[in-house]
Amino acid sequence: MTDHDAVQKQYQDFKSRNLSLNMERGQPADANFDLSLPILSAVDASNYTTDNGVDIRNYPGGILGLREARELFCEQLNVGPDEIMLGNNASLEMMSRFLTWALLRGVNGSSQGWVNESPKLIVTVPGYDRHFLLARELGFELVAVKMTGNGPDMNEVEKLVASDAAIKGIYFVPTYSNPTGDTISQAYAERLINVKAAAGDFTIFADDAYSVHHLQANPTPAPNLLQIAKDAGVANRVILFGSTSKVTFASGGVGLAGMSTDNIAYWSKAMSTGSIGPNKAEQWRHVLFLRNYPGGLTGLMQEHAKILKPKFDKVQEVLNRELGNHNLATWTDPKGGYFVSLDTVQPIASRVVELAKDAGLALTPTGATFPNGTDPENRNIRLAPTRPPVEEVELAMEIVACCIKLATAEAAST
Amino acid sequence: MTDHDAVQKQYQDFKSRNLSLNMERGQPADANFDLSLPILSAVDASNYTTDNGVDIRNYPGGILGLREARELFCEQLNVGPDEIMLGNNASLEMMSRFLTWALLRGVNGSSQGWVNESPKLIVTVPGYDRHFLLARELGFELVAVKMTGNGPDMNEVEKLVASDAAIKGIYFVPTYSNPTGDTISQAYAERLINVKAAAGDFTIFADDAYSVHHLQANPTPAPNLLQIAKDAGVANRVILFGSTSKVTFASGGVGLAGMSTDNIAYWSKAMSTGSIGPNKAEQWRHVLFLRNYPGGLTGLMQEHAKILKPKFDKVQEVLNRELGNHNLATWTDPKGGYFVSLDTVQPIASRVVELAKDAGLALTPTGATFPNGTDPENRNIRLAPTRPPVEEVELAMEIVACCIKLATAEAAST
Repeated sequence: MTDHDAVQKQYQDFKSRNLSLNMERGQPADANFDLSLPILSAVDASNYTTDNGVDIRNYPGGILGLREARELFCEQLNVGPDEIMLGNNASLEMMSRFLTWALLRGVNGSSQGWVNESPKLIVTVPGYDRHFLLARELGFELVAVKMTGNGPDMNEVEKLVASDAAIKGIYFVPTYSNPTGDTISQAYAERLINVKAAAGDFTIFADDAYSVHHLQANPTPAPNLLQIAKDAGVANRVILFGSTSKVTFASGGVGLAGMSTDNIAYWSKAMSTGSIGPNKAEQWRHVLFLRNYPGGLTGLMQEHAKILKPKFDKVQEVLNRELGNHNLATWTDPKGGYFVSLDTVQPIASRVVELAKDAGLALTPTGATFPNGTDPENRNIRLAPTRPPVEEVELAMEIVACCIKLATAEAAST
Repeated sequence: MTDHDAVQKQYQDFKSRNLSLNMERGQPADANFDLSLPILSAVDASNYTTDNGVDIRNYPGGILGLREARELFCEQLNVGPDEIMLGNNASLEMMSRFLTWALLRGVNGSSQGWVNESPKLIVTVPGYDRHFLLARELGFELVAVKMTGNGPDMNEVEKLVASDAAIKGIYFVPTYSNPTGDTISQAYAERLINVKAAAGDFTIFADDAYSVHHLQANPTPAPNLLQIAKDAGVANRVILFGSTSKVTFASGGVGLAGMSTDNIAYWSKAMSTGSIGPNKAEQWRHVLFLRNYPGGLTGLMQEHAKILKPKFDKVQEVLNRELGNHNLATWTDPKGGYFVSLDTVQPIASRVVELAKDAGLALTPTGATFPNGTDPENRNIRLAPTRPPVEEVELAMEIVACCIKLATAEAAST
């Protein structure tokens, strides 16, 4: 039996098992959610008034969110308690509200809304499909820049931003990027914050969705973007976003936005036009739950890592075993976040996803990690190993490896 | 002692008591919130999966909200379960998202976003300050139309809408209007729905905030706006909004938007760009709480009415006793909602509010019920009797009556 026959046979074996595996979306596992079950009972009829005397049942409480919750979550975005505002259940909704306001009215310091300036946003590739969808549907033209191991390709960003005043900002994931797992380096962060921009109101929209989602015990601290901006005298240039979606529950959490106090004043006024204030009940649940959690937020994230790390380790183990030194693919080895990014050597990503689907494994659709849904090189595959149990991750990765071998062979024979 | 001296003395007596009373905002009382305390404990570690098998902790569940919650809340907007979508904690935020989308991309059937069409919205006066703030800050020019006992002055609306294609819609409260308490009549509802509009995408944004907030036991049903629109063949013309802010808690509730199924398809796609879905935990709490409440939603609203009606009755009692047949003011006698609207005969509203403030009673600032914060006739005062206990409502209304007498006398003597 030739190697190719062996791969064919392995693939048919997988198909014959009528599997139903899913590595499509970056969802926590039930075991992750179970860690936060006490949050459901954290607030009851005995404790609905906060330390500061706010009754969470009534309107007053402010557009920024509860003080106690801001003091708790500012750590997650590496900002101070006066540099954070809270939102409803997810960061995506906050980012949507900020971007729409920027289009209609501008950011802090804009002379007008961006909508009539043919606005463009730089996005990183491979990147997050929901960023692309949101920005594109709101009317931004997306300019793709490669995500490197040090963050967005700064040579390219500097060139683009300096020459095109229509480029109003960059929208990316600074820590454990979706899907590559790369974190922006200190040097790149400083270059980005200090970038010479043709647009006077160029803004860095940093979706720091995985800022505390480490897989390792003693993580290297990521660059402090707001501090760098303050030091550079451009404190208003960066806005950080985050949420509790992968801290507690992926619905029913708290959205976070971190920024300078000057920006807090601007954006709280902006957000006040369309809100009396975000859900305080959910904020207070989070405060009471995390106060009681051993080690607080850090302790909870360490428990998450204990569940997630074996799955990421298994991805590396199977890929190294099956594809190592075969020159069929390269892949990232993230130290945090929710994804692994794999690039096939041949332009066969869509065929791999198709073969996997036929074998009962759902992967993220090819092209989802690119702005227009098309991977120009047809090489990138996003792997999302967080939700399935580790046994299924192993099986799924064996299928992925098999499909890569098969599709590579197919490509060679045509 | 002359009448005027007696009023002066009464006013000085009020002042000497160092009172601190508040009838400024339409907030529920603690007794209202207490009715819903069990909602805090409705969901726990034993019941976080819905009847339809959705785990409220994870992402999936859809942009429309939980099916069980839609089946429950469609009654509140008088629409079917397939004609409602849910949002996060308040209707204001949903209205903000719908209006911003309309500006950037248009409504269902628009050829483009409204932002470049110098868009105008009709608002009713006296009306709700947060409607004015939101629409104005987003860039709409506001066109004020008088709120009558039958709803928006339809003669005026018909004239405006027919001739001005920049008028993109009307934004008002159809049931127990803020602040007059008026409900649109069937005849006016039919005229509004069928209005001949120069703008092909003219839209009725109906903030039905008080649709189930009756003060009487057997309320007269309000016109069914969506049904009228469907019957008229313009089902997409009306969008209804509501929330649970004055049903359960004023923070931590569920926003509601009711519309045709065709609009549901359009708006769920629009909202999907900026959200994976609204907070399911809060929705599920509402479902489990209201299922167990005696009489369900209707039963709960009847308990609210038992708390609120004596306060509204007291407002009428004091105003009739102190101001009846004196030709100093007229006022509404709402059958539901959260406010009473009073018009002084003389242009003295701002002076009344000032005098009341000096006597320790905070009233809604004069002009708040008008689009630009200025009451052109200086006659309208919004009374919000829901939050204080009935004894304080009585005292507050005596102060209001006294201040009206005093300010009227001042006006006559200058």
